[in-house]
Amino acid sequence: MAKLSHTDKYGKARMVDVTSKQKTLRTAQAKAKVLLGEKAYKIVKENNISKGDVLSAAKIAGIQAAKKTSELIPLCHNIFISNIDIIFNMNDNENIIEIESVVKTESTTGVEMEAMTAASVTALTIYDMCKSVDKSIQITDIELISKTGGKSGIYKK
Amino acid sequence: MAKLSHTDKYGKARMVDVTSKQKTLRTAQAKAKVLLGEKAYKIVKENNISKGDVLSAAKIAGIQAAKKTSELIPLCHNIFISNIDIIFNMNDNENIIEIESVVKTESTTGVEMEAMTAASVTALTIYDMCKSVDKSIQITDIELISKTGGKSGIYKK
Amino acid sequence: MAKLSHTDKYGKARMVDVTSKQKTLRTAQAKAKVLLGEKAYKIVKENNISKGDVLSAAKIAGIQAAKKTSELIPLCHNIFISNIDIIFNMNDNENIIEIESVVKTESTTGVEMEAMTAASVTALTIYDMCKSVDKSIQITDIELISKTGGKSGIYKK
Amino acid sequence: MAKLSHTDKYGKARMVDVTSKQKTLRTAQAKAKVLLGEKAYKIVKENNISKGDVLSAAKIAGIQAAKKTSELIPLCHNIFISNIDIIFNMNDNENIIEIESVVKTESTTGVEMEAMTAASVTALTIYDMCKSVDKSIQITDIELISKTGGKSGIYKK
Amino acid sequence: MAKLSHTDKYGKARMVDVTSKQKTLRTAQAKAKVLLGEKAYKIVKENNISKGDVLSAAKIAGIQAAKKTSELIPLCHNIFISNIDIIFNMNDNENIIEIESVVKTESTTGVEMEAMTAASVTALTIYDMCKSVDKSIQITDIELISKTGGKSGIYKK
Amino acid sequence: MAKLSHTDKYGKARMVDVTSKQKTLRTAQAKAKVLLGEKAYKIVKENNISKGDVLSAAKIAGIQAAKKTSELIPLCHNIFISNIDIIFNMNDNENIIEIESVVKTESTTGVEMEAMTAASVTALTIYDMCKSVDKSIQITDIELISKTGGKSGIYKK
Repeated sequence: MAKLSHTDKYGKARMVDVTSKQKTLRTAQAKAKVLLGEKAYKIVKENNISKGDVLSAAKIAGIQAAKKTSELIPLCHNIFISNIDIIFNMNDNENIIEIESVVKTESTTGVEMEAMTAASVTALTIYDMCKSVDKSIQITDIELISKTGGKSGIYKK
Repeated sequence: MAKLSHTDKYGKARMVDVTSKQKTLRTAQAKAKVLLGEKAYKIVKENNISKGDVLSAAKIAGIQAAKKTSELIPLCHNIFISNIDIIFNMNDNENIIEIESVVKTESTTGVEMEAMTAASVTALTIYDMCKSVDKSIQITDIELISKTGGKSGIYKK
Repeated sequence: MAKLSHTDKYGKARMVDVTSKQKTLRTAQAKAKVLLGEKAYKIVKENNISKGDVLSAAKIAGIQAAKKTSELIPLCHNIFISNIDIIFNMNDNENIIEIESVVKTESTTGVEMEAMTAASVTALTIYDMCKSVDKSIQITDIELISKTGGKSGIYKK
Repeated sequence: MAKLSHTDKYGKARMVDVTSKQKTLRTAQAKAKVLLGEKAYKIVKENNISKGDVLSAAKIAGIQAAKKTSELIPLCHNIFISNIDIIFNMNDNENIIEIESVVKTESTTGVEMEAMTAASVTALTIYDMCKSVDKSIQITDIELISKTGGKSGIYKK
Repeated sequence: MAKLSHTDKYGKARMVDVTSKQKTLRTAQAKAKVLLGEKAYKIVKENNISKGDVLSAAKIAGIQAAKKTSELIPLCHNIFISNIDIIFNMNDNENIIEIESVVKTESTTGVEMEAMTAASVTALTIYDMCKSVDKSIQITDIELISKTGGKSGIYKK
Repeated sequence: MAKLSHTDKYGKARMVDVTSKQKTLRTAQAKAKVLLGEKAYKIVKENNISKGDVLSAAKIAGIQAAKKTSELIPLCHNIFISNIDIIFNMNDNENIIEIESVVKTESTTGVEMEAMTAASVTALTIYDMCKSVDKSIQITDIELISKTGGKSGIYKK
């Protein structure tokens, strides 16, 4: 059977043993898009201009979620995270909020999943705050933008 | 300022007070897609046919995440969930796994966020298990398919 | 030995059995004060006027903490909470932020500890955000303002 | 705008990036007072003399809470803690229990919030165990006594 | 394939849908034994007689674990628990501590797993406190003693 | 009073201060047995042969529980774990599943409790999945098989 690092030769789930890996600086950047549609986008935009809490709450949720990654993703290691940041880009033309997460660690394993989880939960929190206005909002394009550090080195989308 | 149920008149975050709401049966269905690409899709497909753990682990992660929704999404209520199910559909033509989550409760508030969170974390877990093979895998189309129960009644995408 | 509801006749810790108690609406209000001192107070005030995140982050932390009360306080029950609110009062004369928490449930036991925990963690978060400016900030006067519901009925400080 | 390390130039919340900070031994001591009043104080004193569980349960709760600090305080890092201790001082003249917490780590960031959280939750647990006897018990004077280690060096109240 | 309530017809894991089940009083009792051996047993016995914290800490750990059951056991529901009690019986002849847990709820599903988890974590905590003295301590005979309530009615070992 | 590392001279609970301990590779192996009886054993065996999820779900639960050890066992440190593995051995003669857990870290304290907790929760999850068929299933023989690393060095049962 073709091999995943997270499955054994029988295809069964397993953690990757990172005991002997080098402790180095590792970073990961991920993104997500929230397709708000015209109505919800206008409200969030207005909330943001008048410095309301929609994006602030979403950012805090994303930061907190990154710290919970190993509780959420069964085969992730519980690593120390040295920084988590969430950046929003308001795309007025398409009524989209673009979320970018950046996570850093000095560890024996990377923070791709922490960045992916942070971006996802930030997006889910925006959905939660807007769902009373429009339930058809979509979260899309969750992906890794880049990673650095570790044996596999630099990845760039 | 235009009103969200999760912001006050100053745009500040707040919970919705569900104290006086009716306790009724409420359900929600959400979905997510994982765009695996040819290589990773083939491996997951093979893992699934030979009854490996990739989708099993992802399903368990999704179920566990639904129960954690109120820890992840700041303004969600900590409600009792009476059922969580995760269904996979392998789309061979497009190398996509389609995830559908179904959540039920008898409560004073709905389970949309529980369904959305379950679908998202199921997708993230598939990403985690496949990222050693292909880091460019995308999670997309996370959205509510339907909800029933509560004052706002039935919603269908 | 004089009796606490949370100790048995030997003085040993125990939960209160609320199995046969009435499920009624119960509310609790608690407060806390953060004595910021002139310098930190001025910064938080300015942050608040310009709609920065200090109090928003503290409010979200307080709401999240209320939901975690039964994880933090060993003998508390894990109850459904129907609303949590956090209100700030800026006391310019004394450089103090007064925090008021309000928690509601329809349950067989009260939410005093949820309100006390919410007020405390809101205050701790303000401390965290200001400690780079002044480490001598004090949190004080954490107490129950009122409770309603349950056999013991209404309490007002 | 005046600067907090936990806000950016727009006053928005952010974590402090501790990636490049030195990993050194860091300690923090914090305290809290529980103003029990005559009746509750006498009961807790008696419980303590006869070696009941009130203070034991509170100490365990404080230790457990310190380990949860990064879940409770949004911008705290999830660090490894090498020791947590809670010490009680019974002040018979004023019917007060004085709580002192001591937390240690070898990390790139300090443990002030861990010590403050430990003291607070220890105090809240005492309140919880005594609230059936007297709801007007106050928690007060939560503050940092000292810290050592890190770039900012030694702090002493 | 022979059927478990927690597997579907393909043998895949699933939650039991308890949406339409009756909300009734349900109780469960479980037990565990800790085979301490002579040396550790003598120390715990002495600690218990002089009212030290070994069993108090273990009891609190067991109570806290019962509340975490649905986080630990993937297919368990997150239910409200109305009481958790832990009782110790010191068996001097065999150097054994017998642990009995009792859990109650009024819910649509039972608390067998909460009782089993409470007994197990109580036992693990005793092991943890004694392992510096004797690493060969065994935990054994974890089992359900009885349950009441629900469609399947009364069970007695 | 005879001394445990987890109690002070008064017999009160305390953490072990590991601040000055050496950071070395440490491993621990633990085991548990699930006495399924003929009926449940046959079903789990069949589920396993046809690659159902019973043991997969139990393994994931065990891995997740190891990461939660410091939340469950009050005096455990919150350490980074570099690997967790769960191995099953089907004992057809006695209708027993033997569980073996292996945990690794590079830390200032060992992972005995992580291994013991992983084995226990793996066993509890098997119980949960089979309890609809036979409530009298017993979990037994939870014990440490071996540990390496740290000042106390190698232990072998």
